[in-house]
Amino acid sequence: MTTAKAYIKGSAFPPLSEGTLRLYSMRLCPFAQRVRLVLAHKQINYETININLKEKPEWFLERNPSGSVPVLEKDGKIVYESVIVCQYLDDVYPQNRLTPSDPYQRAQDAILLDYYSNKYIPNFYKILRDQKDEEAKDTFKKAVQKLDEELKARGKYFGGSQVAMIDFLIWPWIERFSLVAAVFPEVVLSKSNFPRLFAWKQNMMSLPAVKGIAFDAEFHQMFFQKWLEGSAEAYDVGLEE
Amino acid sequence: MTTAKAYIKGSAFPPLSEGTLRLYSMRLCPFAQRVRLVLAHKQINYETININLKEKPEWFLERNPSGSVPVLEKDGKIVYESVIVCQYLDDVYPQNRLTPSDPYQRAQDAILLDYYSNKYIPNFYKILRDQKDEEAKDTFKKAVQKLDEELKARGKYFGGSQVAMIDFLIWPWIERFSLVAAVFPEVVLSKSNFPRLFAWKQNMMSLPAVKGIAFDAEFHQMFFQKWLEGSAEAYDVGLEE
Repeated sequence: MTTAKAYIKGSAFPPLSEGTLRLYSMRLCPFAQRVRLVLAHKQINYETININLKEKPEWFLERNPSGSVPVLEKDGKIVYESVIVCQYLDDVYPQNRLTPSDPYQRAQDAILLDYYSNKYIPNFYKILRDQKDEEAKDTFKKAVQKLDEELKARGKYFGGSQVAMIDFLIWPWIERFSLVAAVFPEVVLSKSNFPRLFAWKQNMMSLPAVKGIAFDAEFHQMFFQKWLEGSAEAYDVGLEE
Repeated sequence: MTTAKAYIKGSAFPPLSEGTLRLYSMRLCPFAQRVRLVLAHKQINYETININLKEKPEWFLERNPSGSVPVLEKDGKIVYESVIVCQYLDDVYPQNRLTPSDPYQRAQDAILLDYYSNKYIPNFYKILRDQKDEEAKDTFKKAVQKLDEELKARGKYFGGSQVAMIDFLIWPWIERFSLVAAVFPEVVLSKSNFPRLFAWKQNMMSLPAVKGIAFDAEFHQMFFQKWLEGSAEAYDVGLEE
């Protein structure tokens, strides 16, 4: 059972099936997308329950009191927080392993993710909310430069010659990069501005897992506008009645 | 080579020895303490270089541009961020393993750590800076209650019957609990207020790794006062000239 429309407060709980992996998601959520990328790359079967994050069903809040997606559920086991869910999936489903086997490489990837989570992601949203936030723009630009430089040492992917977990964890906010670039032209992701990150974006877009679930810039913009307005309609944007 | 006094801006770089594990630390830093607990529990030999975090040596900033301790260095390999360093040590030195072998338990511990990192730690500092911050006090109290409830299901330790990584990652801000309780008496860590967390504290204090590097409440208070004032002297508090 895969739903497209989001479940909303008051809606009945969709029954669970024994042995079926379920993802509580939101179609446009970058954090949930991380998990969907890992599921696709590892070719894991699952069902999707989309959640209206403005008007959350009671049964969803029982599963994750913090109310965020993604949440994974199977046979009574519940896991949430995107990085934790991705790691759990990679541990439990060993095919197409995404985590480096070398502990030092795992540590370096965790350090890069920590930097990205603290310097890139929060400033991405700060700029979209206030394009005059110069401190956010400055830190964000440095973070983009840092990503470009990291690729110099790392290679084709952040994972090296092969795509790895760190690539999928970074991807969703690069897919949405044009939202920021539209209001902050200095960071336009071009070949001349950030050659390695630009090439990485092309390489990532050629992967079936990435291509299969990507939305285009216009669609992201359409959702983001409604989300910023706090509209409960954001979650069914682009769907037929 | 173990130093007690903190290295300061302008001081010469203490030479590295091949094969020696080095920890850049600060005696009173709870994040560095996490790593020192893991090192002690796993009985790993290392040298300590304490850093004056108000006036940081240039060679320290070269190693970790964000300027925080702990930083680990050995034979050209550098790792920082406390949780990442602890995990790296547990991966590289397999004795007295602290990470659960079950992926679901690892995920549950990561979820608890995420909650603790976002709800407990930041509000711990907010209350110390402004004891009238009612929102911080409310969230902090809920976090303390949550820790107590978690132990109901988990047992003697957060790790169950044995101490685990999650226990050492939580510990440093419980050792310093009296700093908050002094200005927010509702959360005093007593047997009647939080029976399981109170018992856990006693159990933790009986472990050699914990006992061996604990400071008492007065010492934490003395350091914390100087730290709040932004004094560079904080880092050598209690040491002989």
